[in-house]
Amino acid sequence: MGVSGMSVDEKSEAPMYVYESTVHCTNILLGLNEQRKQGLLCDVTVLVEGKEFRAHRAVLAACSEYFLQGFVTQSDNELVLSMPEE
Amino acid sequence: MGVSGMSVDEKSEAPMYVYESTVHCTNILLGLNEQRKQGLLCDVTVLVEGKEFRAHRAVLAACSEYFLQGFVTQSDNELVLSMPEE
Repeated sequence: MGVSGMSVDEKSEAPMYVYESTVHCTNILLGLNEQRKQGLLCDVTVLVEGKEFRAHRAVLAACSEYFLQGFVTQSDNELVLSMPEE
Repeated sequence: MGVSGMSVDEKSEAPMYVYESTVHCTNILLGLNEQRKQGLLCDVTVLVEGKEFRAHRAVLAACSEYFLQGFVTQSDNELVLSMPEE
């Protein structure tokens, strides 16, 4: 299950149940990759040497300051980003 | 740095460098959450009991089959999703 623990916070008045998962972030990335492979909810096309890669802007921006700056300054809902030549 | 290893695959003809990170997926989720808190690249508003939550459709869909089905059947670029009453 990947559930590492469930505990009750004793300090607060009302019991607070804490759910911890060791696989949550891995599962999210697997899900995002599956969407990308199926072209689901992709909102950008990255052009690299004539080859097109569909992707999620938010994910690219979360990995890369370069993409973050590129995307937040553009307002297009659907865009194509051409990578500059080295 | 969170880099757990870098190795050369001896089996293939050309050397293949493998980069492994133990913090990559955590960092992506932190980055996505930071975007969400700043309202960056959010493409959906979830309405829960009158309260609005801005979010990324791809991330919600990666966590939840309910959201995945809801989003892939809708074609709006920017949408508001009202959660049904229990």
